[in-house]
Amino acid sequence: MKVSVLQGPGSLLVEDRPVPSPGIGEVLVRILSVGVCGSDTHYFQHGRIGSFVVERPLVLGHEPAGEIVELGAGVTDRHVGQRVSLEPGVPNPLSPQSLAGCYNLDPEVRFFATPPVDGVFSEYAAHPAAFCHPVPDSVSDDAAALLEPLSVALAARAAGRVGVGSRVLVAGAGPIGLLVSKVAQLAGAEVTLTDMRGERLTIAGQYGAQSTFTADDAPPIGPEYHVFIDATGAEPAVLAGLQRLAPRGRAVLVGMGADTIALPVPLVQNRELTITGTFRYANTWPTAISLAARGLIDLDGLVTSHHGLDDVEGALLAGNRPGALKAVVTP
Amino acid sequence: MKVSVLQGPGSLLVEDRPVPSPGIGEVLVRILSVGVCGSDTHYFQHGRIGSFVVERPLVLGHEPAGEIVELGAGVTDRHVGQRVSLEPGVPNPLSPQSLAGCYNLDPEVRFFATPPVDGVFSEYAAHPAAFCHPVPDSVSDDAAALLEPLSVALAARAAGRVGVGSRVLVAGAGPIGLLVSKVAQLAGAEVTLTDMRGERLTIAGQYGAQSTFTADDAPPIGPEYHVFIDATGAEPAVLAGLQRLAPRGRAVLVGMGADTIALPVPLVQNRELTITGTFRYANTWPTAISLAARGLIDLDGLVTSHHGLDDVEGALLAGNRPGALKAVVTP
Amino acid sequence: MKVSVLQGPGSLLVEDRPVPSPGIGEVLVRILSVGVCGSDTHYFQHGRIGSFVVERPLVLGHEPAGEIVELGAGVTDRHVGQRVSLEPGVPNPLSPQSLAGCYNLDPEVRFFATPPVDGVFSEYAAHPAAFCHPVPDSVSDDAAALLEPLSVALAARAAGRVGVGSRVLVAGAGPIGLLVSKVAQLAGAEVTLTDMRGERLTIAGQYGAQSTFTADDAPPIGPEYHVFIDATGAEPAVLAGLQRLAPRGRAVLVGMGADTIALPVPLVQNRELTITGTFRYANTWPTAISLAARGLIDLDGLVTSHHGLDDVEGALLAGNRPGALKAVVTP
Amino acid sequence: MKVSVLQGPGSLLVEDRPVPSPGIGEVLVRILSVGVCGSDTHYFQHGRIGSFVVERPLVLGHEPAGEIVELGAGVTDRHVGQRVSLEPGVPNPLSPQSLAGCYNLDPEVRFFATPPVDGVFSEYAAHPAAFCHPVPDSVSDDAAALLEPLSVALAARAAGRVGVGSRVLVAGAGPIGLLVSKVAQLAGAEVTLTDMRGERLTIAGQYGAQSTFTADDAPPIGPEYHVFIDATGAEPAVLAGLQRLAPRGRAVLVGMGADTIALPVPLVQNRELTITGTFRYANTWPTAISLAARGLIDLDGLVTSHHGLDDVEGALLAGNRPGALKAVVTP
Repeated sequence: MKVSVLQGPGSLLVEDRPVPSPGIGEVLVRILSVGVCGSDTHYFQHGRIGSFVVERPLVLGHEPAGEIVELGAGVTDRHVGQRVSLEPGVPNPLSPQSLAGCYNLDPEVRFFATPPVDGVFSEYAAHPAAFCHPVPDSVSDDAAALLEPLSVALAARAAGRVGVGSRVLVAGAGPIGLLVSKVAQLAGAEVTLTDMRGERLTIAGQYGAQSTFTADDAPPIGPEYHVFIDATGAEPAVLAGLQRLAPRGRAVLVGMGADTIALPVPLVQNRELTITGTFRYANTWPTAISLAARGLIDLDGLVTSHHGLDDVEGALLAGNRPGALKAVVTP
Repeated sequence: MKVSVLQGPGSLLVEDRPVPSPGIGEVLVRILSVGVCGSDTHYFQHGRIGSFVVERPLVLGHEPAGEIVELGAGVTDRHVGQRVSLEPGVPNPLSPQSLAGCYNLDPEVRFFATPPVDGVFSEYAAHPAAFCHPVPDSVSDDAAALLEPLSVALAARAAGRVGVGSRVLVAGAGPIGLLVSKVAQLAGAEVTLTDMRGERLTIAGQYGAQSTFTADDAPPIGPEYHVFIDATGAEPAVLAGLQRLAPRGRAVLVGMGADTIALPVPLVQNRELTITGTFRYANTWPTAISLAARGLIDLDGLVTSHHGLDDVEGALLAGNRPGALKAVVTP
Repeated sequence: MKVSVLQGPGSLLVEDRPVPSPGIGEVLVRILSVGVCGSDTHYFQHGRIGSFVVERPLVLGHEPAGEIVELGAGVTDRHVGQRVSLEPGVPNPLSPQSLAGCYNLDPEVRFFATPPVDGVFSEYAAHPAAFCHPVPDSVSDDAAALLEPLSVALAARAAGRVGVGSRVLVAGAGPIGLLVSKVAQLAGAEVTLTDMRGERLTIAGQYGAQSTFTADDAPPIGPEYHVFIDATGAEPAVLAGLQRLAPRGRAVLVGMGADTIALPVPLVQNRELTITGTFRYANTWPTAISLAARGLIDLDGLVTSHHGLDDVEGALLAGNRPGALKAVVTP
Repeated sequence: MKVSVLQGPGSLLVEDRPVPSPGIGEVLVRILSVGVCGSDTHYFQHGRIGSFVVERPLVLGHEPAGEIVELGAGVTDRHVGQRVSLEPGVPNPLSPQSLAGCYNLDPEVRFFATPPVDGVFSEYAAHPAAFCHPVPDSVSDDAAALLEPLSVALAARAAGRVGVGSRVLVAGAGPIGLLVSKVAQLAGAEVTLTDMRGERLTIAGQYGAQSTFTADDAPPIGPEYHVFIDATGAEPAVLAGLQRLAPRGRAVLVGMGADTIALPVPLVQNRELTITGTFRYANTWPTAISLAARGLIDLDGLVTSHHGLDDVEGALLAGNRPGALKAVVTP
């Protein structure tokens, strides 16, 4: 099978590799669509993210969907021909974290495209059946792939306990910010979306935002929001969001970028604010599939370009183009 | 009646003032004991705490206990002669925050010794009956006064959701840190108490700490604690505490001091940590009274000196002496 | 002013009474619309509900909206001419329950049309300003009145912790069941609505139900729902709902009727089900107003008849007619 | 090895069986102590519990402790000679329930001594290493076995959210009721323990109860408790407990017995009570070990008789003797 392999920063090569065999409890999936994430682009350009360093050739891509073509031993609840969305992180299911319901925090978790684990910019992948979630026909291949970023948004919503009547401020109108905004609206919230670049907000209404603002037209600061969700990773955005939280407000840090932010302790204390971060997601696929299958969220509408395995570089760089949201690789 | 009045930074004067009359729903209390808090000392020395500035003469003291000597109109559930612990913050009970159960966050709250509201370094005070909590004979006057700092500790425990089996790290072995430590132990936690000054830890065992460490003998950093409660307000202590939190760990910022701390965002995200601050307390007196009345916590043991109204300055400065924990003014 | 007074079971009389004067913190409201609740009808027909007995003439009606015509002393945050929805239950705001955020459970609460407290089938009412919630022009008088039953539904949703991805079964397609269904949908749930009378389900789709069933076409029992909300008060409906709950499922008993239900203990234990009841609501009006003002819920669509003060009997009996949902009295 | 096998109701036989081999991820344990549970006795006497029927010879016993004597393939975090407490229920760790943190509710769970899965009244057992929890030397073999009923108590405490300042009523002074009482006290609660048989309450003070009552000296019913935990399974006890719950009170049904209880719906609604049941436990061993190792709970004090494998019948019937609490089988 063909596989796109990162050789080092800025260098990709399509290789021929043997199709893997599904192990016990695994299925073999023909990959049909893989969403491109900012972290893929970051590994491509910089060869590392924080302490995760690409030291050997690495296959990128961790938002895959595909079709089951072979069942490994012991798999009885999947069938060949079934279309599935692959949850990319596989924990040790007997770790304390997994048994406690937060398998995403298991330190042993193996996650596609996180060194040294290969990702799925390839024609096939073997993966545990339990992490290959069947999707109905009403969910396209691309939408099935994008259940992964939707899961990020669902985890952010849960961490912020966004619900009916919540007033929510979301910073950052990229794919994650838009999905967070939409999920918050579907949870019954009133959503305000903000971004430094006004042109990114033109699509905000379609993704659940009732109002928007940019740095230029920022309203006077008042403690009005119940929840603030940051999808920028930028310190100024986080600090501005904290200022706008009402007493007992909750901030959820989803965006990556800043190594530290200067947390205003008296503000946190006087308003009893809560700040938390999310790391991926756990147990989100059933809800993600339900939302997509019921037509409540337009995942296909986020896709702004498609690329073959021989144009993974184009896919990785597509996000920099004006108007681009999500590139998809179709192996 | 005699009242000790702060005229300006460093300047206290005992004045004669008329005994107040209890209003509707209020009782008149003869003050028997008032704990001294670090914030009293800070106002005395600096004339301000953050945005709260002493612009006119101010009576300090906000941890009072006393005896009811007169009932205002409409008070039917208190009686003359009853000993009470005074909860110092009185909200507008119809504010949205009060109706939602967090009356401490009502912006209209009036709190003893927070400018421009006078405190209780005085012989008498009128106060709403609902915020004068009767105490049984088994609770001394001093202990009744110290239900206030105990309430701070109870609020910290609640914010950290400390319970049976929690492993808790407390930073700061002053009165608040010791009370937090004790309350955590009473909640079933294993408690470690840390302080830069090792001599402050000698009493730790009596206040629930199972183990202690100082900066010098700090154990290697490992993600071992479920909850970290800071009672120092010092950035290095907070950052060290965050490093020691396990996945899904919770940090509670109780200590005041640092204006900002450099929050390590990747750590917060990768372990899904939660950071929150507490602002005083709400609905804590019933539990505080229960713990004191059952003899589960030695509040009298925290008192290291007593002072009359004519020695409030001595009381305010007593905390600086080696071995001092809590000074008490007995008007 | 004219007031409709229940003299005894089945006997109503329109009387002339003096217009009340608003007390301290109160406003005087000209009543514009009052929704009729099943409990009004029950008092009219039976003279009692459980331990609440109509022993003296009583004014019924507890779902009012109106216009402020006079301000009592001390009211600064309302103005004459403002349209308001009246929250009917007024607690002692200093009771332990109120201070803890559940003022609906204060035993001293005074609630319109609950003996011996008069309701609002009258031209005017004086009521505490804090419980007269301003509504925007986009919310009609009738809709402002029906924020009360909407609040019942919001309390049920909160008790069941219905959220994004929840699968919810609602029993009973009367006004409360329909509002519960709609609120659950707005919270992101998949909703199934059931009623013994199939004709009541024809409107289900407009109120958020994705699917429906009657006793005749009940699907095979499977543990599929996360939440069951009963709006019937009928034991068979409750027992059938419990059977359909998934592990860790939650049942919320809203409907009144059955004195006891035969709780199946092994089922409750083996699936760790939770059963709870709701008693009115607390702190729901801000969200209710937000949902109505944003046009997310069609409260006017529930109104099937209007009646003057001289036809309160007609209003009270209107609910028995086929196709009737909600009668409204317009004094 | 020798194994005690239930042939049918009332009939036990000691058989010779081959020592099992530990599979992948398993360890072989030499059984040192097995607590006897009421369910063992029930299977012995009646051959069934509800829908669980003993249709073939069955080994009873599900509260075991022992010593690891052999490691299966892939086990790296245990060693031969290690003393362990065996958690008796092993789920499919990839089931939805397991991944969500409530593996006890996985319908595929295999649990010692629940037909058709054999228990541990035998000299050896092979068991997954992840469910063999190492215990320190300070925890005796019997205490290690009794971490299982302690886990039942910990799950009840968690379900009731018992914490500092909770007032808790526990019904039933058998081993489970005593452990629930003790755990509640360790969580900071004020505990009242009740039992129909006064003589069973003599030990109550040692297990955390601050006060006790029997049917004869029951205090007047008042809504005073925050939490009620039933360890009797008897309808009158449950109904009496519900009557004594304060608004927002929580009832936890742990005891098995009644098929149904006549739930008083108006009471549940008017006080917004919550009723829940527990099914075994999940993720409790770390806390159970911590409590036992710190000497906070006297598990050995519950043991009132020891029996060899050839006297399992004596062990199973020992619970009926006056003064008996817990019988232990030492293979």
